[in-house]
Amino acid sequence: MIDFEHMKQIARTTHSKIVFLVIDGVGGLPHPETGKTELESATKPNLNRIARESLCGLIDPISPGITPGSAPGHLAIFGYDPVQYNIGRGVIEALGIDFKLKPGDIAARGNFCTIDNKGLIIHRRAGRISTDKNTRLCRLLSEITINGVEIFVLPVKEHRFALVLRGEGLSPELTDSDPQQIGLAPKKVEASSSEAWKTAEIVNEFVAKAQEILRGESPANMVLLRGFSCRPHIPSLSEIYKLKPAAIASYPMYRGLARLVGMQILPTGETLTEQLSTLSHHYADYDFFFVHFKSPDSRGEDGDFRAKVEAIEELDKALPSLLSLNPDVLVVTGDHSTPATLAMHSWHPVPFMLKSKWCRPDNVTEFSERACLSGGLGRFPATEIMPLAMANALKLDKFGA
Amino acid sequence: MIDFEHMKQIARTTHSKIVFLVIDGVGGLPHPETGKTELESATKPNLNRIARESLCGLIDPISPGITPGSAPGHLAIFGYDPVQYNIGRGVIEALGIDFKLKPGDIAARGNFCTIDNKGLIIHRRAGRISTDKNTRLCRLLSEITINGVEIFVLPVKEHRFALVLRGEGLSPELTDSDPQQIGLAPKKVEASSSEAWKTAEIVNEFVAKAQEILRGESPANMVLLRGFSCRPHIPSLSEIYKLKPAAIASYPMYRGLARLVGMQILPTGETLTEQLSTLSHHYADYDFFFVHFKSPDSRGEDGDFRAKVEAIEELDKALPSLLSLNPDVLVVTGDHSTPATLAMHSWHPVPFMLKSKWCRPDNVTEFSERACLSGGLGRFPATEIMPLAMANALKLDKFGA
Repeated sequence: MIDFEHMKQIARTTHSKIVFLVIDGVGGLPHPETGKTELESATKPNLNRIARESLCGLIDPISPGITPGSAPGHLAIFGYDPVQYNIGRGVIEALGIDFKLKPGDIAARGNFCTIDNKGLIIHRRAGRISTDKNTRLCRLLSEITINGVEIFVLPVKEHRFALVLRGEGLSPELTDSDPQQIGLAPKKVEASSSEAWKTAEIVNEFVAKAQEILRGESPANMVLLRGFSCRPHIPSLSEIYKLKPAAIASYPMYRGLARLVGMQILPTGETLTEQLSTLSHHYADYDFFFVHFKSPDSRGEDGDFRAKVEAIEELDKALPSLLSLNPDVLVVTGDHSTPATLAMHSWHPVPFMLKSKWCRPDNVTEFSERACLSGGLGRFPATEIMPLAMANALKLDKFGA
Repeated sequence: MIDFEHMKQIARTTHSKIVFLVIDGVGGLPHPETGKTELESATKPNLNRIARESLCGLIDPISPGITPGSAPGHLAIFGYDPVQYNIGRGVIEALGIDFKLKPGDIAARGNFCTIDNKGLIIHRRAGRISTDKNTRLCRLLSEITINGVEIFVLPVKEHRFALVLRGEGLSPELTDSDPQQIGLAPKKVEASSSEAWKTAEIVNEFVAKAQEILRGESPANMVLLRGFSCRPHIPSLSEIYKLKPAAIASYPMYRGLARLVGMQILPTGETLTEQLSTLSHHYADYDFFFVHFKSPDSRGEDGDFRAKVEAIEELDKALPSLLSLNPDVLVVTGDHSTPATLAMHSWHPVPFMLKSKWCRPDNVTEFSERACLSGGLGRFPATEIMPLAMANALKLDKFGA
């Protein structure tokens, strides 16, 4: 595949519009009784109509057999090698609560936990305390001050919080304090490289002060930290493709990922109808739109086959407003599969379709796993989607004379 | 594809069982009269039944157009890039006779040859002397002693033997003594790097003494050496995938390859029925099994189409005992094709199927080259098999958050 430097040389700005509709967790597995997957079970005339006019295939977000987290799944769709651009857990946690990480910020994932009077961990999640309690404790920990660094302690959910350090000369090259098992004491955070010595001291000071503050609390009387990381340098979609991109997503995590690759975040509502109305409203202002639809993944993770089918049907019903915009390129796919039978993200390749005046349609007449298998794109890496979309939008010059 | 370091981070040990049934040389070409390949000609209800419940495809062991030797063919199936992990010919020869190479041992492939009274080679294979004669000559050469090195001269077959040197500070960076044509004198072995000077001297001393010992013999009055190599460092399957793997193979070469990647070698019999009974017997003790079935390759190399078909039918009849174990993941494929019409290994991709509760079945109903072409995996590199098998055995965590 050509690299970003070559892409920059052939990409051009035009008036054509590209829309990526990402149906989170859309791929599935057959229901044991019917032998049909969620997509095969859904009534979805609009998705099927798009399939008939599209070039279809199946994507591997990372590589065969590898189950993607949400971050690598989306980065691959946006054209970034998800192994090379591996985003740390701390950063993901901060993105997931819409925190605007600045370059140089260090983020970690935090757990409230329970230690006994010898200092040994007896519950790594403090019995999953309520988010309310978490919020109150984070407010207490936010009072901690350490010279030369700004500290953010941000509640996430239940026992989980994000810690962000902002200051000069910080480094994320730190070991975890979380030993990942009970019966041990939380570990001292150590610098994995000499640049991180100062940061290690700061973090250990934070942990000591946190322990002091939480001493009287029960069950959440200590913190565990892991996944220290900072916002990676990722060339933006504008730099690589000369696009003016915007994201329409209801969940903070996906807005965060979109922000990482340089998309403008458009305020929107909770429902797909509201999201698509946001799309119509801003259609003239951008040339690339990422629309994220979350519920098929959530229903898949619940293990609720029927609810996932209904989420797909809900999407299908909302599609006419998108189709009426008639984007020059419409991509419909997912960031990974979430089969309801497995009730988790999975490694199975994800159905894909690209509709454009200039695509070479195949014989696929239905949007499903089995149907897309015989599509014109076959099985292919998700990182090839962006060049294909750009080409079909006539936004790429030829390569070489 | 993700590398071994990333794989180590997501692999986990579970109770699930993976069985790889490798049918050596299973791929073929159509018979000129019937237009059907060996697989298409065979009566094989069990293989076809597996195909109906499997995810199918065709593997390229190395890359399109490249005919694999047995070593790269198997290494690729076990997940190792066969170009990066290229095993020297000397090592292959030693593995092929079940010789247990230690780290640092230097192995070479040897030929007995015939030289004339001017010292020029007149027959590179000494007229393919009998294996008995070879064995007697190897015993004579085993008497050679050289300071600071232990010498093994091991008969292989006909004119072929293996030379192994064991000692401190040896290096395989040596040129061949075999000029690969007649009318020339055997070449002096030279060091390709300064670390190999001492080893070159030792080898040349060995050759001189061998010539002295063989002076009165006819026709095998000299030796030729090539492919100096030592056992490469290959991370084991346990290191990479946290597996406890075992191999069930009747031929020493395949046991040697399995040993190289860290498999336990299980004693077994000569027939597939005995091999499968070994599998049942040890089924509880390991979580990964490599079962090697040799005869389709041998019959293919003989150019005996009918016999290769029968070998496949013999395999099919033996399968119920394997299927009754109901492994969580069953992979059936070959290390390369050996079309009887070509009577040699070939570059043609090899039919593949993976059966698991969690595979997404396709519409393939038969195990054959043409049928697998429309399988859910399409055509893919053999190095992707291990991640797929691990995923379907639910032995991989997700990648990234």
